[in-house]
Amino acid sequence: MRNLKLEIEYDGTNYCGWQVQDSPRKKSIQEVIEKILSSILQEKIRLVVSGRTDAGVHAAAQVANFTTKSGIATEKLLGALNGCLPADITIAAVEEEKPGFHSRYGAKSKVYRYTILNRRHPSALLRNTVYFYPHPLDLRLIRQEAKSLLGRHDFKSFQGSDAKKEDTVRTIKAVKVSKKADLVTIDIEGDGFLYNMVRSIAGTLIDIGRGKLAAGSIKKILLLRDRRAAGPTAPAKGLCLVRVKY
Amino acid sequence: MRNLKLEIEYDGTNYCGWQVQDSPRKKSIQEVIEKILSSILQEKIRLVVSGRTDAGVHAAAQVANFTTKSGIATEKLLGALNGCLPADITIAAVEEEKPGFHSRYGAKSKVYRYTILNRRHPSALLRNTVYFYPHPLDLRLIRQEAKSLLGRHDFKSFQGSDAKKEDTVRTIKAVKVSKKADLVTIDIEGDGFLYNMVRSIAGTLIDIGRGKLAAGSIKKILLLRDRRAAGPTAPAKGLCLVRVKY
Repeated sequence: MRNLKLEIEYDGTNYCGWQVQDSPRKKSIQEVIEKILSSILQEKIRLVVSGRTDAGVHAAAQVANFTTKSGIATEKLLGALNGCLPADITIAAVEEEKPGFHSRYGAKSKVYRYTILNRRHPSALLRNTVYFYPHPLDLRLIRQEAKSLLGRHDFKSFQGSDAKKEDTVRTIKAVKVSKKADLVTIDIEGDGFLYNMVRSIAGTLIDIGRGKLAAGSIKKILLLRDRRAAGPTAPAKGLCLVRVKY
Repeated sequence: MRNLKLEIEYDGTNYCGWQVQDSPRKKSIQEVIEKILSSILQEKIRLVVSGRTDAGVHAAAQVANFTTKSGIATEKLLGALNGCLPADITIAAVEEEKPGFHSRYGAKSKVYRYTILNRRHPSALLRNTVYFYPHPLDLRLIRQEAKSLLGRHDFKSFQGSDAKKEDTVRTIKAVKVSKKADLVTIDIEGDGFLYNMVRSIAGTLIDIGRGKLAAGSIKKILLLRDRRAAGPTAPAKGLCLVRVKY
């Protein structure tokens, strides 16, 4: 059996997320790719992903792998996939991996980017990939507070309230807040993320930049281990998985 | 009567273009904005635009103006428009203009950007706003040839074959070809553009970068005054009106 790795880009706008949900109206990204892979390879294919993404969340470089008996050349499979997939899911690479490679267990860290359009009017061209936030943000405050996220912490306060993960300790390796024209980006690299963690961190940093939460809030919120202490969950459309490191 | 100017951003993907066409299936951007303006102002509004854009072409900053008897504050109208318009049309500014201001006649120049995604696989996230071209392009050749467009020329060879404009002389004030990661952008500023002119220039420059057309081709094509001499019309989705100068 061969073990093949896919690097996947997707616009999550029209999907219920990576995984199949109980949504009768929208497809999952996983099922769309699995169906086409199974049809090309004439074999039932199941994808192992680096981590699920929610409805409306995007990926510039999601990673998934699968085993197959097929002897198809990787370049040929890449062409066939991009030819068959809908335009909002594209494959950047198909690579041969060692038998033991596992997209999720093997991931050393993941990088998410949260993008905020910070100006007074919305953008037609960016409407699906940024969170439009019209109020002024103090970037200096956001950058200062973001530093408190670095390192190993219990992120229970930033876990979606309907999530039930017992082990809520994660390590944030890097946080970078940038601004280019009207776009503010928050890049967060961590060894793993809880459900809604990046979006609730983004929502909290926005509240800090707006002056709704005081300086020092992140440290306090982390210690409280209570979702109600943090800011709101920022909208899914602003979030993108940009890299998985192995 | 007041004369109000709009700066408009739109994603042209789902429209038949700026102007009403004989298309029963897609709306025009003009009719969508006029309908909402008329409804907000309780008065029949007709927009004068800097220049029409075709089906699928985008605008980062299209300019249109209209006259109204309404005394509505410009900021209030801006908010109402963005609240009522579909998400793929947004208004960046509403400004009071002098009575004589005319979006088309007053325009000194327009800047169009043509964007090419030049890599081996397509992009899900950019699928509607770039032209995916997987073959290698020689940017040095493209830049060199693009210089021949500068100045006052008869651009009849770059006019869509079904267009009938008699006066096909235009002045190109600037051309800039840039590359950032996999994105090649061609920015063209001119005092006016013929039907399909930027798209046929882009298609010709792509053919030059690919080696299908020899160095020196642009000069020859201009002299021939024949649409068949130029390269193909590049797809609408890669084109965006980025600025109108007054």
